[in-house]
Amino acid sequence: MSAVERVAAAYLRNAEIDRPEAWIALRPETEVRAEAAEIDRRVAAGERLPLAGTVLAVKDNIDVAGLPTTAGSPAYAYAPEADAPAVARLRAAGTVVLGKTNLDQFATGLVGTRSPYGAVRGAWDPARISGGSSSGSAVVTALGVVDLALGTDTAGSGRVPAALNGIVGVKPTVGLVPTTGVVPACRSIDCVTVFARELSLARQAAELMAGPDGIDPLARIDVPAPPLDARPVVAIPTPEHLEGLAEGWVEAFRGVVGRLAASGVDIVEVDIAPLLDAASLLYGGAFVAERTAAVGAFIEANRELIGTDIDPTVAGIVLAGADARAADYFRDRERLDRLGLEGLGRLAGAVALLTPTTTWHPTLDEVAADPVGANSRMGRFTNFANLLDRSALAVPAGVVGGKPFGVMLTGAPFADRTLAQLAERVSAPPVDVLVVGAHLRGQPLNHQLVAAGGSFVASVSTAPDYRLFALATTPAKPGLVRVADGGAPIEGEVWRLPAAGFGRFVAALPEPMGIGTARLADGSTVSGFLCETVALEGAADITGFGGWRAYLASAV
Amino acid sequence: MSAVERVAAAYLRNAEIDRPEAWIALRPETEVRAEAAEIDRRVAAGERLPLAGTVLAVKDNIDVAGLPTTAGSPAYAYAPEADAPAVARLRAAGTVVLGKTNLDQFATGLVGTRSPYGAVRGAWDPARISGGSSSGSAVVTALGVVDLALGTDTAGSGRVPAALNGIVGVKPTVGLVPTTGVVPACRSIDCVTVFARELSLARQAAELMAGPDGIDPLARIDVPAPPLDARPVVAIPTPEHLEGLAEGWVEAFRGVVGRLAASGVDIVEVDIAPLLDAASLLYGGAFVAERTAAVGAFIEANRELIGTDIDPTVAGIVLAGADARAADYFRDRERLDRLGLEGLGRLAGAVALLTPTTTWHPTLDEVAADPVGANSRMGRFTNFANLLDRSALAVPAGVVGGKPFGVMLTGAPFADRTLAQLAERVSAPPVDVLVVGAHLRGQPLNHQLVAAGGSFVASVSTAPDYRLFALATTPAKPGLVRVADGGAPIEGEVWRLPAAGFGRFVAALPEPMGIGTARLADGSTVSGFLCETVALEGAADITGFGGWRAYLASAV
Repeated sequence: MSAVERVAAAYLRNAEIDRPEAWIALRPETEVRAEAAEIDRRVAAGERLPLAGTVLAVKDNIDVAGLPTTAGSPAYAYAPEADAPAVARLRAAGTVVLGKTNLDQFATGLVGTRSPYGAVRGAWDPARISGGSSSGSAVVTALGVVDLALGTDTAGSGRVPAALNGIVGVKPTVGLVPTTGVVPACRSIDCVTVFARELSLARQAAELMAGPDGIDPLARIDVPAPPLDARPVVAIPTPEHLEGLAEGWVEAFRGVVGRLAASGVDIVEVDIAPLLDAASLLYGGAFVAERTAAVGAFIEANRELIGTDIDPTVAGIVLAGADARAADYFRDRERLDRLGLEGLGRLAGAVALLTPTTTWHPTLDEVAADPVGANSRMGRFTNFANLLDRSALAVPAGVVGGKPFGVMLTGAPFADRTLAQLAERVSAPPVDVLVVGAHLRGQPLNHQLVAAGGSFVASVSTAPDYRLFALATTPAKPGLVRVADGGAPIEGEVWRLPAAGFGRFVAALPEPMGIGTARLADGSTVSGFLCETVALEGAADITGFGGWRAYLASAV
Repeated sequence: MSAVERVAAAYLRNAEIDRPEAWIALRPETEVRAEAAEIDRRVAAGERLPLAGTVLAVKDNIDVAGLPTTAGSPAYAYAPEADAPAVARLRAAGTVVLGKTNLDQFATGLVGTRSPYGAVRGAWDPARISGGSSSGSAVVTALGVVDLALGTDTAGSGRVPAALNGIVGVKPTVGLVPTTGVVPACRSIDCVTVFARELSLARQAAELMAGPDGIDPLARIDVPAPPLDARPVVAIPTPEHLEGLAEGWVEAFRGVVGRLAASGVDIVEVDIAPLLDAASLLYGGAFVAERTAAVGAFIEANRELIGTDIDPTVAGIVLAGADARAADYFRDRERLDRLGLEGLGRLAGAVALLTPTTTWHPTLDEVAADPVGANSRMGRFTNFANLLDRSALAVPAGVVGGKPFGVMLTGAPFADRTLAQLAERVSAPPVDVLVVGAHLRGQPLNHQLVAAGGSFVASVSTAPDYRLFALATTPAKPGLVRVADGGAPIEGEVWRLPAAGFGRFVAALPEPMGIGTARLADGSTVSGFLCETVALEGAADITGFGGWRAYLASAV
């Protein structure tokens, strides 16, 4: 797809998803198209642009020249002079920025509801939260508007929303991607992160963004860890640390552990209590004063805006840090160092710690009822990573109760690539699915497959056991029904979807459609659409056309 | 020399030096001798103990089992259960601990006067300060009581006293030597350091102490820097940063720079203003609250002891940190990070920064008149090192006005060995000196040569141009006088002294002795004793004995 076509599809898709709150600033389509046309021209001229044809969203605490940076507060907004290096490097690689996304204000939260621009609704279920703080970026990625989105992560903001929206969240080692041009949350441990539906694309973007820029004093040169051992060891938490998870998540986690073990990984259970104690220091100690140092003066000077431009929960957290003493910080720091030594010492020999990414997926109402409590439950497995200089990677790992379930690998600094290698073994295997109607290429619902991370495999025919009906729906949909006698082969396409994408795709199917098993002409089986018998009332039998496209052509 | 002999010599020497204030706890000689005898037994049994036959002093903020740790405050004293790992590792290598040395209380100071155990007087001139905070350790090393002494260094405490007493001070990269069992000053940047008269011995001790101990969470594994380039680049400060030094020190520093350039090093001048600005944060910002976190509660609880057990200046500094806010710390930290990036960026390409170690050598009275001001002048070149994670090495570099002058090499983390390689080119060349009487091996003043870092080269005869007199002094000393006629060859020994040690040796010579040039039988010349003509009155001409030993033997 050309960059111009991709941009057009992005705006079309954005119009469909009903998540206006995901954006704080969406650029005019004509302007973005012009940029895309220039990318297409350069590619046509032979230039190698690895991200050409992709579309990017940027969390609104990261500078994009020409758009205000709000960090989620209209009153805080400023006009940056230049792209943040993270953005500039992706643009130089050929991507096109669509706009700036909503966030928990000042990147303070894991819920996605702490914003005067609106609470961001989850991609799979609008009654549930998106997760945060990189809320808008995760949702527009999950719903297929963009291919890539930048987030930031201090306590889990680039990982929790990945889990809750069924996508990949790469949180590089602290310092690998410069934070120049990023509104600080906790300056010393902030990371720029990247979301994508596919791990390989997210990793590619992370690599493109990495490297000191000469401005960020905390930027570090990559010292890649060695590749995976033939039989790597992965740690998982002892059972008591998996208590209190959402229904079905422990079982789903055990399933992932089983897949990993089956792939040749040795699993060891580790009591991660010291790591969780370390995590508690992020908000429970003087560390929160780093947030005060970043934006406390702004909130203090604009107290009258609390409740409008300034989120009350965020203001409460940031201002609480003003009371902390420097001596308390140094005592907390010592405690953190000692907990880190103990907790990480227990992980010695393991290449990564595997955990669920978060602990539950609350509704918007549940978060509104208990903004701090609901939030703090979510950071159990994410809060310690940056404090203890860890690399981390959140990946989709299946569907539980129709909603995405995600797991996370947390490793040593500079183990980023190693975690990606492991993640490939964690993901559920992809699913092949037969489509025969509105999801075929060029048909009106095909974008749902694309948004789910799907790719076209082949044009196929079913076994000669089916009859095809045109249902009385809008838009018109086909009903494929297996029959004992009098069936015929029907033309269709097989698409391959990542497991989580497939789950989300199935969960979103409207009545009367369902997914079952379809038999192909070559005797193999794939997943395929079912149709409730009740829907066949009033439907026209179009088996004779041999397929949906031929039927449509005849109807014109 | 056996360990037992070395211990005996140490106690003898200690009785001579008139620096009782250098020690807080000196172990009973019989106890130390017993330990030494065990070392000798093990060596005789074939065990390899690289430090066998050496004697160690330990700064009294480092635990030695069986001795209280006071950190310079009697009221703070506690009885440690075990040796600090730094001490234990040196003991395991065969050294013997003589006792615990005085210090600026809680290692807070660069002067050596902030202690209820007394102001430590300099090794070369008792009217001047020893420097601190590792005051006692430096003085007993410089005066030849011990071979090695441990210090600590946060702002320069392991380097400034090295310079002011004409010895080597190794300040390893932060974290290389565990600080377990060390009373914290600023916990996150404290280092254990080592003093010796010779660089090679100091480096050997530093290597023996290095390596994580499983307890210090900030301990780091060594990642040695590559060896020196064929033509390394060394940075020196631009002239404005060398203003205000003690008389003659700039000229002495230029001399060192000249020697280094002549040895094949390219010199570049660098404006180190950002590093000095960074240094100012150590006491001028919220960083001082790390000292409050360490011992503020003790001082607060014992305010009535300020002026007796607690030094008033130290108390003032430590308690001032109680007011600092954590948010201020985070702002200062950001400023430090940015200054570090700028300042260290200017040093890019240089393997080290060469500076004078300190800026002046005040008298005890000068420090008493302005305790904080006199102190803060001394840390110009040392304060930034640990804040910015530097390795550093202070070495003697000559004698100015009869007192030692020292320079310092400051480098990247883990460049410790590289700095040592460079330091060998910095030191003034050693001096060969002829001795013919009380300084001969086995004679009563021989220890002065040993204490000056001297080593025996050869037994020699002078050219046949001398006459030898027995002066009417106590102890009896020879007077060697060159004559135009009627001379004879006189037996003696050539000793080789490090330049700084030689300077100190000469500066300490009593009337009527001086040092000039002596001609040897083989036609070469070395430095040799002169004797004022006035002293020959009443002296016996003993030329006929051919040498001092023969004369003494005849007299028995």
